[in-house]
Amino acid sequence: MTADHETLEAEQSFERYLAGRAALVDAYLDRYLPPGSTPPETISQAVRYSLFAGGKRLRPVMVLAAAEAVGGEVEDALAAAGAFEMIHTYSLIHDDLPAMDDDSLRRGRPTSHVVFGEAIAILAGDALQTHAFAILADPPPPCRLSAERRLRAIAEISIAAGAGGMVGGQVFDLESEGRPVDAATLERIHQNKTGALIRASARVGAIVAGASEDDLSRLTRFGEGVGLAFQIVDDILDVEGSDATLGKSAGKDARSGKATYPLVHGIDQARRKASELVSSAVHRIEPFGAAGRPLALLAEHMIRRSR
Amino acid sequence: MTADHETLEAEQSFERYLAGRAALVDAYLDRYLPPGSTPPETISQAVRYSLFAGGKRLRPVMVLAAAEAVGGEVEDALAAAGAFEMIHTYSLIHDDLPAMDDDSLRRGRPTSHVVFGEAIAILAGDALQTHAFAILADPPPPCRLSAERRLRAIAEISIAAGAGGMVGGQVFDLESEGRPVDAATLERIHQNKTGALIRASARVGAIVAGASEDDLSRLTRFGEGVGLAFQIVDDILDVEGSDATLGKSAGKDARSGKATYPLVHGIDQARRKASELVSSAVHRIEPFGAAGRPLALLAEHMIRRSR
Repeated sequence: MTADHETLEAEQSFERYLAGRAALVDAYLDRYLPPGSTPPETISQAVRYSLFAGGKRLRPVMVLAAAEAVGGEVEDALAAAGAFEMIHTYSLIHDDLPAMDDDSLRRGRPTSHVVFGEAIAILAGDALQTHAFAILADPPPPCRLSAERRLRAIAEISIAAGAGGMVGGQVFDLESEGRPVDAATLERIHQNKTGALIRASARVGAIVAGASEDDLSRLTRFGEGVGLAFQIVDDILDVEGSDATLGKSAGKDARSGKATYPLVHGIDQARRKASELVSSAVHRIEPFGAAGRPLALLAEHMIRRSR
Repeated sequence: MTADHETLEAEQSFERYLAGRAALVDAYLDRYLPPGSTPPETISQAVRYSLFAGGKRLRPVMVLAAAEAVGGEVEDALAAAGAFEMIHTYSLIHDDLPAMDDDSLRRGRPTSHVVFGEAIAILAGDALQTHAFAILADPPPPCRLSAERRLRAIAEISIAAGAGGMVGGQVFDLESEGRPVDAATLERIHQNKTGALIRASARVGAIVAGASEDDLSRLTRFGEGVGLAFQIVDDILDVEGSDATLGKSAGKDARSGKATYPLVHGIDQARRKASELVSSAVHRIEPFGAAGRPLALLAEHMIRRSR
């Protein structure tokens, strides 16, 4: 068997892993959404419309793969994985609003406010954020996560999603529009807006699996590198992609004068940086051996994507 | 001493209690907002603008008073109290948005989107919701709340605030605009939109204090009655009040064709109903004796307010 064959087999095997884990996340979300008593039909429709819009489930699969890397059980990590997808989806719905990025297309479909109107889109995002914490506070069986681990997961997600993380990144991003942005500012935007939640995905996977502090620290650095690389690739795709391959309005960042990595550093340097970040991240999790392979392949997949 | 004197003294003593507890909540919010690393200046300003806009802290004081009624310590209930005020404030910011109720005045001041723009107002609401869960997941000392109780509080708040509660009520409310609304639909709107969070305030106070199931059930019924009465009084104030006493745009519900209790039942019946609900709620907590007096007085205060 040649090296090419081996790579191909590893890739095919990883594609199966990714599809399998994403299917677990989908089934979980479908089954446990929304918790609590019966909501109005409109809000259920709006929540499901965005949550089941063909997202790749990269963040929840990272939670699962990080848990598996340190010997955790998938079924104990599913509530946290689902919570990350809910937080991510809520942020997409709100980011797309006319008052924010004003996007009418997402994952190849009309955005939530185009379909349901702005009021329902705002409320669907609000409800998804609430549900993320509801599901983690009281996850249905067979999740056997201890109270302490659930609380640590909630704390991690809320810090990463809040004003000092994802929401803060969106504010920095809005404030940078149409202004010259230096490399340090750009990195701060990226670290907050996208990086914080991806970093937290890796950390929470480790936490729900009861990882040692050393392993948690390893996965934290891994998540930071992958998070930054992911945003750089997103910037590159925005420059290069068409609406069709991107599934959202291409060239939008450049048109709105938003700071992007290729704009500040050039496209070749952007590609090199993304590649180096992922190599270094993968190197960090080598001590996990075979258990860490899906996580490493996920990182490589995340920067290879055409989105 | 005459009966009138006694009533006056009880009222003055309650006013001191209310002011004292509200000051504790304010100090707590001021000190622990926001948790996590440094957010952008704009979002901190927007969050504080709405959170410290002269709100009466009725929900957090209800958490504290319910906890005290069943023998709990105030300092163990403060994180939950703060969380309720953050959730309440986030909902006000989002409800006031142009796409929702389009209100430019709240508590006598311009609303968040008028001051900071729509994008920042949406994000400030988002961040406040996140912080509510962050502070409960990892409350700063001297809070000694067990992990189990913190999780129960998070579960209660997230269910009450979500699509099956507060957000769902807002959806029902938006959908009822300009349509004829019957008494059952109106009650469902009220129970979800305002009632769910007030009911949860009483329940969470009981939970953080480690109340028995019997006492929890008593406080649940209490919270339900007070929550509905509160919304009926709000409706009456909207009909009767001026912008000045109300601190928000008066007559707005009627102008937008929203369902209100006086509209469906008439203003006399609305007043009678609010009064009956509170009497019955107060009766339910009589077994708590002197420890339950502040909670009973709070209920009476909530329907006496000119807002």
